[in-house]
Amino acid sequence: MNNFQRIVLASRPQGVVSTDNFRLETVPVPDISDGQVLVRNHYLSLDPYMRMRMEDVKSYAAPQALDEVMIGGTAGEVIATKNPKFSVGDKVVGMLGWSEVAVSDGSLLKTVDTTHIPLSAYLGAVGMPGMTAWYGLTQIMAPKAGDTVAVSAASGAVGSVVGQLARMRGCRVVGIAGGKEKCDYVVNTLGFDACIDYKGGNLFKEVKAAAPNGVDCLFENVGGVVMDSVLARMNPYGRIALCGLISGYDGVPMPIHNIHAVLSMRLTMRGFIVSEHMELWPEGLGELGQLVASGKLIFRETIADGLSAAPEAFLGLLRGKNFGKQLVKLI
Amino acid sequence: MNNFQRIVLASRPQGVVSTDNFRLETVPVPDISDGQVLVRNHYLSLDPYMRMRMEDVKSYAAPQALDEVMIGGTAGEVIATKNPKFSVGDKVVGMLGWSEVAVSDGSLLKTVDTTHIPLSAYLGAVGMPGMTAWYGLTQIMAPKAGDTVAVSAASGAVGSVVGQLARMRGCRVVGIAGGKEKCDYVVNTLGFDACIDYKGGNLFKEVKAAAPNGVDCLFENVGGVVMDSVLARMNPYGRIALCGLISGYDGVPMPIHNIHAVLSMRLTMRGFIVSEHMELWPEGLGELGQLVASGKLIFRETIADGLSAAPEAFLGLLRGKNFGKQLVKLI
Repeated sequence: MNNFQRIVLASRPQGVVSTDNFRLETVPVPDISDGQVLVRNHYLSLDPYMRMRMEDVKSYAAPQALDEVMIGGTAGEVIATKNPKFSVGDKVVGMLGWSEVAVSDGSLLKTVDTTHIPLSAYLGAVGMPGMTAWYGLTQIMAPKAGDTVAVSAASGAVGSVVGQLARMRGCRVVGIAGGKEKCDYVVNTLGFDACIDYKGGNLFKEVKAAAPNGVDCLFENVGGVVMDSVLARMNPYGRIALCGLISGYDGVPMPIHNIHAVLSMRLTMRGFIVSEHMELWPEGLGELGQLVASGKLIFRETIADGLSAAPEAFLGLLRGKNFGKQLVKLI
Repeated sequence: MNNFQRIVLASRPQGVVSTDNFRLETVPVPDISDGQVLVRNHYLSLDPYMRMRMEDVKSYAAPQALDEVMIGGTAGEVIATKNPKFSVGDKVVGMLGWSEVAVSDGSLLKTVDTTHIPLSAYLGAVGMPGMTAWYGLTQIMAPKAGDTVAVSAASGAVGSVVGQLARMRGCRVVGIAGGKEKCDYVVNTLGFDACIDYKGGNLFKEVKAAAPNGVDCLFENVGGVVMDSVLARMNPYGRIALCGLISGYDGVPMPIHNIHAVLSMRLTMRGFIVSEHMELWPEGLGELGQLVASGKLIFRETIADGLSAAPEAFLGLLRGKNFGKQLVKLI
């Protein structure tokens, strides 16, 4: 292997993102220096937050630089090392970007054990998405047994974990997802109490029917009318973990009309970024890893084939075309 | 005095409230039974929350009943008593409604000392509006010295207290109010660092200029575009005390477009109702009473003359025609 492929940000989206905003490059495999390792990435994780980084706006992180490798979580294998902490063959996860091969100084690279947990799960249920679910559930919503928990993007990498963890804690769990196939999966396979198809029928009426005692906790990934439909049913002192607003990421932000519920129901809404709470990752990943290893936490993946498929898969993710965690297989 | 006047809710508003929704009645002064007191109300407080009570919707309190006396805070004097806890001549505050005279069993009636604090102030800076300001400031926003605090409806009964208390705690305070006269008062008399006229010029640009280091805490009374303009400038981990959304009370609720700031800036937004936190009133009213008695906390009142003027004054309040605390003088 003398050359490898990578994808850089070619231009910023004007409104809706297109595949033209990305550029596939073929470059030579570099030599490594003392302290460095060379990693062959097996999986790239595609996540909604990437859309925000493509914009040049004030946010929690610096924008993705033009003509540089797109940011992204990866899982792979060490293929050369001049760092005593790593051996050839080690399975590692990191933020090595949309790239088949990458050099790392090892500081942000984590060795993982794939004996009982598949490598790809470290980008999903036992990785950043799983931790996002765990953090919002335990640190913001903190539901009691018997509470009703609503989750949007319920079949996705984060939502699916939120709902299963809430069920294990004795909650009634109502999902919202796009389409009958996803809703059937959420109820029949993941075990949610109900799931509402936001594309069909009357969202507001169906949320009311699925949550007859109102909603105590909302884990929000979508925003817009999906969020409004749950806000209308919130109980007094309800908690909202604001994790994502994907309905407004690509193009025009979606307004919220039912903000008055925050006042009349004395709700607490909190936005969060899970990477700011690394001190909790060992605890959260410990729980998630055990649940995945023992088969108690179910997850599903949509895997695009090859790096060149990544831009199209990313556009699909923003439109909900994926089913479960969206990955790109790089090998 | 054989008869007195009172105002009942005649009908619920269809969209915008009108004076036709109220009915003035003349009724005989009742006899009192053992344990009761008869109160001659001197002042009626008009407050935005009353608009919500006029609707028959799910909220934190039951709707105002039709054909019954409109809910409202009052300050007055005991004119007859068969309750050993009260004497004729006692100054009392309570929730006796839009009525010149009322009977009370004394349980929710509080005797107040008017030696150093005028009676009307117990409906404003040393009453529910003052406590609302104190609660949101100390229990939700909890600003540190040097923080920037933004307050909408800054010249009003609540906003004026929020800003003055925040200034005393070493904060930079930016008000938003309607019109040059109110803004001049907020800066020159109340001592805010800046005040923006939401009716003039470019709200977003002016908030940015007035808060060069961003906004750490927002006390929101208005909603809509006023709230959006501050959301756009919030700093990471900012706190929002959601006290009111008056721009959407009368007619169509105003959407929020910048909800994404809650996510990207990891904000915490909390709605509250100060009457649910009575355990804190002694502490809060203690601070507020001392500040008013010593002249350190400034307040302003708009006083309508006579109960029959209350409906028109209430409609004005919803449109920001009042300047400071809106009262009705009943004697």
